[in-house]
Amino acid sequence: MALTRFIELTGPDIAALSPDTVAVLPVGSVEQHGPHLPVATDHLIAEAVAEGAARAAAEHCDVTLLPGLVYTKSDEHAWSPGTLWLSASTLLAVLDDIGRSLAAGPVRRLAFVNAHGGNSALLGVALRELRTRHGLRTFLLHASLPADQGGASPSPELGMGVHGGLNETAAMLHLRPDLVDMARAERSVPEHLAEYQHIGFGRPVAFGWTSDDFAAGDGPGSGVVGDPTGATAERGRVLVEAAVGRAAAALRECAYFRPDAPPPRRPQGEPDRP
Amino acid sequence: MALTRFIELTGPDIAALSPDTVAVLPVGSVEQHGPHLPVATDHLIAEAVAEGAARAAAEHCDVTLLPGLVYTKSDEHAWSPGTLWLSASTLLAVLDDIGRSLAAGPVRRLAFVNAHGGNSALLGVALRELRTRHGLRTFLLHASLPADQGGASPSPELGMGVHGGLNETAAMLHLRPDLVDMARAERSVPEHLAEYQHIGFGRPVAFGWTSDDFAAGDGPGSGVVGDPTGATAERGRVLVEAAVGRAAAALRECAYFRPDAPPPRRPQGEPDRP
Amino acid sequence: MALTRFIELTGPDIAALSPDTVAVLPVGSVEQHGPHLPVATDHLIAEAVAEGAARAAAEHCDVTLLPGLVYTKSDEHAWSPGTLWLSASTLLAVLDDIGRSLAAGPVRRLAFVNAHGGNSALLGVALRELRTRHGLRTFLLHASLPADQGGASPSPELGMGVHGGLNETAAMLHLRPDLVDMARAERSVPEHLAEYQHIGFGRPVAFGWTSDDFAAGDGPGSGVVGDPTGATAERGRVLVEAAVGRAAAALRECAYFRPDAPPPRRPQGEPDRP
Amino acid sequence: MALTRFIELTGPDIAALSPDTVAVLPVGSVEQHGPHLPVATDHLIAEAVAEGAARAAAEHCDVTLLPGLVYTKSDEHAWSPGTLWLSASTLLAVLDDIGRSLAAGPVRRLAFVNAHGGNSALLGVALRELRTRHGLRTFLLHASLPADQGGASPSPELGMGVHGGLNETAAMLHLRPDLVDMARAERSVPEHLAEYQHIGFGRPVAFGWTSDDFAAGDGPGSGVVGDPTGATAERGRVLVEAAVGRAAAALRECAYFRPDAPPPRRPQGEPDRP
Amino acid sequence: MALTRFIELTGPDIAALSPDTVAVLPVGSVEQHGPHLPVATDHLIAEAVAEGAARAAAEHCDVTLLPGLVYTKSDEHAWSPGTLWLSASTLLAVLDDIGRSLAAGPVRRLAFVNAHGGNSALLGVALRELRTRHGLRTFLLHASLPADQGGASPSPELGMGVHGGLNETAAMLHLRPDLVDMARAERSVPEHLAEYQHIGFGRPVAFGWTSDDFAAGDGPGSGVVGDPTGATAERGRVLVEAAVGRAAAALRECAYFRPDAPPPRRPQGEPDRP
Amino acid sequence: MALTRFIELTGPDIAALSPDTVAVLPVGSVEQHGPHLPVATDHLIAEAVAEGAARAAAEHCDVTLLPGLVYTKSDEHAWSPGTLWLSASTLLAVLDDIGRSLAAGPVRRLAFVNAHGGNSALLGVALRELRTRHGLRTFLLHASLPADQGGASPSPELGMGVHGGLNETAAMLHLRPDLVDMARAERSVPEHLAEYQHIGFGRPVAFGWTSDDFAAGDGPGSGVVGDPTGATAERGRVLVEAAVGRAAAALRECAYFRPDAPPPRRPQGEPDRP
Repeated sequence: MALTRFIELTGPDIAALSPDTVAVLPVGSVEQHGPHLPVATDHLIAEAVAEGAARAAAEHCDVTLLPGLVYTKSDEHAWSPGTLWLSASTLLAVLDDIGRSLAAGPVRRLAFVNAHGGNSALLGVALRELRTRHGLRTFLLHASLPADQGGASPSPELGMGVHGGLNETAAMLHLRPDLVDMARAERSVPEHLAEYQHIGFGRPVAFGWTSDDFAAGDGPGSGVVGDPTGATAERGRVLVEAAVGRAAAALRECAYFRPDAPPPRRPQGEPDRP
Repeated sequence: MALTRFIELTGPDIAALSPDTVAVLPVGSVEQHGPHLPVATDHLIAEAVAEGAARAAAEHCDVTLLPGLVYTKSDEHAWSPGTLWLSASTLLAVLDDIGRSLAAGPVRRLAFVNAHGGNSALLGVALRELRTRHGLRTFLLHASLPADQGGASPSPELGMGVHGGLNETAAMLHLRPDLVDMARAERSVPEHLAEYQHIGFGRPVAFGWTSDDFAAGDGPGSGVVGDPTGATAERGRVLVEAAVGRAAAALRECAYFRPDAPPPRRPQGEPDRP
Repeated sequence: MALTRFIELTGPDIAALSPDTVAVLPVGSVEQHGPHLPVATDHLIAEAVAEGAARAAAEHCDVTLLPGLVYTKSDEHAWSPGTLWLSASTLLAVLDDIGRSLAAGPVRRLAFVNAHGGNSALLGVALRELRTRHGLRTFLLHASLPADQGGASPSPELGMGVHGGLNETAAMLHLRPDLVDMARAERSVPEHLAEYQHIGFGRPVAFGWTSDDFAAGDGPGSGVVGDPTGATAERGRVLVEAAVGRAAAALRECAYFRPDAPPPRRPQGEPDRP
Repeated sequence: MALTRFIELTGPDIAALSPDTVAVLPVGSVEQHGPHLPVATDHLIAEAVAEGAARAAAEHCDVTLLPGLVYTKSDEHAWSPGTLWLSASTLLAVLDDIGRSLAAGPVRRLAFVNAHGGNSALLGVALRELRTRHGLRTFLLHASLPADQGGASPSPELGMGVHGGLNETAAMLHLRPDLVDMARAERSVPEHLAEYQHIGFGRPVAFGWTSDDFAAGDGPGSGVVGDPTGATAERGRVLVEAAVGRAAAALRECAYFRPDAPPPRRPQGEPDRP
Repeated sequence: MALTRFIELTGPDIAALSPDTVAVLPVGSVEQHGPHLPVATDHLIAEAVAEGAARAAAEHCDVTLLPGLVYTKSDEHAWSPGTLWLSASTLLAVLDDIGRSLAAGPVRRLAFVNAHGGNSALLGVALRELRTRHGLRTFLLHASLPADQGGASPSPELGMGVHGGLNETAAMLHLRPDLVDMARAERSVPEHLAEYQHIGFGRPVAFGWTSDDFAAGDGPGSGVVGDPTGATAERGRVLVEAAVGRAAAALRECAYFRPDAPPPRRPQGEPDRP
Repeated sequence: MALTRFIELTGPDIAALSPDTVAVLPVGSVEQHGPHLPVATDHLIAEAVAEGAARAAAEHCDVTLLPGLVYTKSDEHAWSPGTLWLSASTLLAVLDDIGRSLAAGPVRRLAFVNAHGGNSALLGVALRELRTRHGLRTFLLHASLPADQGGASPSPELGMGVHGGLNETAAMLHLRPDLVDMARAERSVPEHLAEYQHIGFGRPVAFGWTSDDFAAGDGPGSGVVGDPTGATAERGRVLVEAAVGRAAAALRECAYFRPDAPPPRRPQGEPDRP
């Protein structure tokens, strides 16, 4: 039972890893997060959650941490300087290439720890591509579930804290307060969306949006969709620790999950299975 | 307020459509659905729901029904004869081409009505691609939500009725009973999956699976994931009518939805907005 | 000897089909056909001819009818609203994916029944691609041969009835008179082309054209290239029946054609070979 | 009125060409042509016909000869050493790139002079691509029409002299007798194909074939489809001169052809139009 | 004159950067480096040199450090577990996407700091692609020049210290001694290559090689091409400091280089230009 | 020991070639070379050097000369009429297709003889692609090394004779004086570049440039980067003969080079190895 950092190993070390080792790939983004948060927000959250979860899970199973994907799919923020993004086809190719070459070695389990909602659909496609093309067991974990994908969003955000809002801001105040400028944090909740019944963030009908679609006037708006104003480091700490805990438990399961059989009575290295 | 079938119109007719017309694209599949259902199952459900919803919605807004996509992304069933499928990149290209050429005319609203869970992630990607590349307002409706994507699955299926199970079989008994062979319908629920805590259909951690992954023995299994044995036409009728009703209400909203403003007080053609 | 509709079969049904079953793929289009015909014109003709021919041929051989391709390559009509088209590379990818997945099952014979002249060259490319990549025996049948590809075009059209002209209009008056508006049918024959000696529709030298290239003035013209004014349902009936007859006889041959041997003395299920 | 060789000109020379200059692109192949002909057969014929036709046409119009495409699409001969071929997508990309960069200069007319039947369908696709994408007027001339595309094939070949047969061998005896080994020329006509009624070379129903499909036994056969045994240099001279004459007349027309008007009364540089 | 870390900035911060800011992109690799070095070797060197050079250069000009590319093109080591690599087309797409989205903001200067010889050719292609497509001024700096690309390789390596040899090992002993296992460092110099005259590392004739091509016996060899045995941390320190110094001076020049004019007399922020 | 022209051989001839035959692929370009040189300059030099070298080398080993690639990657000259160029991805696909189909026959050695500096990086990528994908031993020879890639450039050019300068002009005066117009040859050396210390032609830091980047004024300049004014045919003769001699010796080595062993004591057909 061990945590390794994949890139700190030698080739022969990697050749000796167990097939049941879970390779963990943090997936972040480089994209505008409003005037108060750095473009690295998703990247930093993905790294922190993946790191914490990998460390905790490694008490029970073999985990190897891959270098995270920093540049991903952020076309909904393409209107803003600072957003550096790959097209859907490029990112699919990157994921396919990583899966292909990982599968050329012994490891057979790959878990994405994703912190950017704009990647979720594409990672859902990749889950199956890497399963069918390269024989990997693939898993998708969310470092922080955005409000439009089932995550919690507190009431002042009306369920629309999907980008740069309360939770992301709180997480950053916990992780990297030096990079947060609360003086520039402003509420930007498209309240009018709440008046629709079917379409909307987290509603049954998803829609194609960009983050400058919601501003009522001429400009693109602040780039925030949510209300960061009440964020605190303490809230961030709680959120991040909860996310780490959930991800750690999930990674542990990734190490023994198989679709054709129940979990082993006593998973490797544990006195009894929870 | 009218329903048109896009392909029954002439070029000049289409040039005269309103930008707020909702173009409806049914999205099905051609894939094995076990020994008791035809490979057209998703296609027929998508068409039926889209047709019914379009007709109902057209009392309140302009709707134009596009020819459905029959061949889509079914790589999870590629192991079975009868599954005809497009790769992710091909299907994205098809959707992009349709969006591009639709946007060369006046219509600016496009709603997918999807009946195949294996398409959901990719359609999620396409929603944004068509929004950013071609300026279309795009929407994703589910003709029947599979159990692993938030749909209801009755208790005998343990929430795993994702393919050829109770609801799909019931819907087909309602729509095309001549194509259902209940004598060959058998329960095939991977009950062992219920013992996992994080990973699984509809669980927080999605995984990359193919429909022959769950059989305990050597063979690929029946191709069913669910329990079709209790399906009835009456249950199917109720399900399909509910799906049509939900989709009709959603399509109606698609006709006036805009991200930067609330719904109009009185949407076009209605005495009062619900 | 039987006709099946591929998508009405189950996976196991399809696994039991004979390798010599001829899979028939109707290929239509969604493109402007002038002010008097619907954009579905080619689609409806392809489906009608394929359906009729498949039924007739199935008295002598196994035929399975695939869902037709509705969206195809119509870039010559891209200038007009209502034309929904795939790029050459997308359509090649679609055909390749269908061929690949069909060949994963038992069927080894695939016949395109094409009703859109703009697809002919690309289908010619696909014939060989699917032969060399997937081992399928592939065939290209024309539901209605346009005048520039060897089809008959009556004298008032000067051999230029390539789009929305006499024959297509007549076929539609027979198949779907409700979708034809003869009051808007106008002659639009680029008579000046007849003065060239080498280049032209059906001439030795093909040229790259779009359907708005031929109008003398500023606008794109009506989109018609031909003279629909004399079309009658009776002419359409004769044309369609002839096309069905030719296609049926050809499909029958597709079932036993092999490049390295003559036809069998008595093809399957027949008293004597014609 | 002049003939130029494009690549012998300087950049400023090319910038000064007339838009009505016809750029001529010979299209050959590198592919097995049986044991008696070189793999360059199509290339040499394409170059000879294009050269002769360009010189003759240039008495009446401006012609510029481009370097020919030697490597093209020969997948039907991929089974044989010596066949060097581009995939369909690669060749389309090459043609698109040439069209794009030619169109960045003044010349607006591009004529393919093709000598390989396996390229015809793909060049048919390219005709329109280069028209719609780059605004070029494009034309497709056949240096020697194979029997399956409307060319003449003498009776001993039963209309099947499509590859390495009488006419190609004769043309090579005229152009490069040093490269022909008549001692190894053998008849290889798949006579059994004549017994089919619909499918076959030059028949209404095209089929996907490779040149090793026709041999009755185990091996691939000689690679010839036709009967070269009676070929003479004199026949070749007549054929090539006729092809040059036809192509010259066609190129002349390419210089003034426009789809929206008749030919000018007196085409440039001519006393009277033929 | 300032150093920023791009991803620590907000969108509005980035919108306010000067066009002459030099964006620095470290380019590493994840690939086997023999039994004594981690697969991160190139990545760590690229980051260290880029970091040091950026900090030093930022005393004289604006520099912004981008997140490095970790997964790059390592197909020459694809035979070894632990090598995670992108295909040439994927990596070109990644670079193009980064260039495109960077160019959507104000920064117009992009410098690659590359530490993996296997990337050099492809980055050479990208230099021009990003210049012509996105209008960026692009530069390629080498963090450590491999022996086959003009770098120094001490005499025991016969000029063949191209991978995991003396210099890379020394650099790692300086940067991350905890990741180096000198007990497993073995000399692996393909001395026989020195007997060729034209072909070889750093010779006039480059050749296509993989790192398992050089072993005399059956196996792939150790994966090292060079002689790490004499490496010391002190040598590493000297090498890295020299590389940093060279790169810093070059980055400074990148900030004012323009192809159509000499350097300014006094580049921004300097008393006098060196 | 023989020289063959690949395309003059028959399929069976090629099937009988030795695996150690060196296939030589000349790589030129079609691109502006200033007002005094033809766009074919690189093409003609590549062909002349490859031809001469192949003939000389064939006294000692088997060499087969392939038809040269004329259209290649010249995007740095895309601004000028007369430049016909393939994109990087198209040219990589062409090289891959040629490599794939060559490797389907017996020949296992492929040498590029390149005369266009703009191709060098991409050919460097292709060297490895064809090695890893198709198992070919690949080599890159330079017909004339441009000044920015290690070639000599005389002092009046300040090391910047990279395009249309002294050496290329001299070579053309030797090879095809009829295509050189010395009256239009003018010096165009961006002398200001010499004032930079790190960035520049042949400097440690490569940069992304186009040939119209260097002109001080508004226009694109002459397209020349160098000083052709002193060129003489005699200088050209010396240069070309030297290039032929170097390439011949290198090709000879290509015939017996193997990465895992020294050269044979007595290479085939030689009394003693130099």
